[in-house]
Amino acid sequence: MATETEETREDGRLTRGRKTRASILDMAADLASVDGLEGLSIGRLAVATGMSKSGLFAHFGSKEELQVATYFHARERFLAEVILPPREFEPGRERVDALVAGWLRYMRTEVFKGGCFFSEVRTEFGSREDGPVRQVVVKGTLRWLELLARELDALPGDRDVEQMAFEIDALGTAANYRFQLLQDPAVFDQAAAAIAVRLDAATVY
Amino acid sequence: MATETEETREDGRLTRGRKTRASILDMAADLASVDGLEGLSIGRLAVATGMSKSGLFAHFGSKEELQVATYFHARERFLAEVILPPREFEPGRERVDALVAGWLRYMRTEVFKGGCFFSEVRTEFGSREDGPVRQVVVKGTLRWLELLARELDALPGDRDVEQMAFEIDALGTAANYRFQLLQDPAVFDQAAAAIAVRLDAATVY
Repeated sequence: MATETEETREDGRLTRGRKTRASILDMAADLASVDGLEGLSIGRLAVATGMSKSGLFAHFGSKEELQVATYFHARERFLAEVILPPREFEPGRERVDALVAGWLRYMRTEVFKGGCFFSEVRTEFGSREDGPVRQVVVKGTLRWLELLARELDALPGDRDVEQMAFEIDALGTAANYRFQLLQDPAVFDQAAAAIAVRLDAATVY
Repeated sequence: MATETEETREDGRLTRGRKTRASILDMAADLASVDGLEGLSIGRLAVATGMSKSGLFAHFGSKEELQVATYFHARERFLAEVILPPREFEPGRERVDALVAGWLRYMRTEVFKGGCFFSEVRTEFGSREDGPVRQVVVKGTLRWLELLARELDALPGDRDVEQMAFEIDALGTAANYRFQLLQDPAVFDQAAAAIAVRLDAATVY
């Protein structure tokens, strides 16, 4: 009985620890979507969360660990918001449409405070020297482009799916930067219209 | 005679001052194309140029002045490299083709060390609080999109030039981020092909 209680207590501590970590990373992903991952420091995060620096160090040993953990946490949110819901459909046009609509909605509704987290960090790390954080950003970008190409490959007919993935990624990403900078949500309609033309042309072939 | 010599001396000083300022700003624009304008400080620029901080303060009174001066300096380089050369052609398809080709070449050849300076700072300032530097970035972005729309408006036929400008800007900007991140220059061919399809469709109407 005593053992059970101890186990329950330990479970409680682990759950609380996980929850604290998740809420710190929520805040970190929001901050990074505005200022980038390089702008993220344990000092700034301490101010934003109201936690002590030493408390944060218990969760993340270094700035680099914090940056990588923030990226993976943001990816979980992206999976839940954008990638997984369209899987209720079979591969094909309906699923591609759901994916594109969900992706544009995710940017328009600012799931992350500064718009698309990934768009921010891809530009941020693009021209920087190689390192562990940049490698995570590169791998994540490739995964996204491959997923897009795979979904497009399920459309009927013969087409250059890498070219289409390039164009669709470009149009959505541009809508995000223009919305953030110029605040006009009409860019999402421009992106959706351009992507639909591309998909219609491909489906006809 | 004495006056003339003094004037000549003064001219010499002004010319030297301008040259020094221009070479500092060249360096600043390169640094900002990699790390953004917020990463630019008089301290970092002193290290990069080998000048003293006080020497730099004589040219730029504050970080904000340095950021704005760097933006305008980068714009001069962009004008000379991308905007002005196509003006040897009359408005129309040939001039649009020259503009697009020059723009993609400017990104591929890395006129700025970290690729397109403007793409970097547009993403950087997109979600930040308003301020003088952000306003300069917003105005510069609008000028670029308006210029693109104006050139497209000179093509024969009837079309939505804002939609086309959105798409062309999106495709080139995506090629830039993907080249910086993934180092594959094939993205410029993907962008050029997609833009040509768009222009051909418009010219046919």
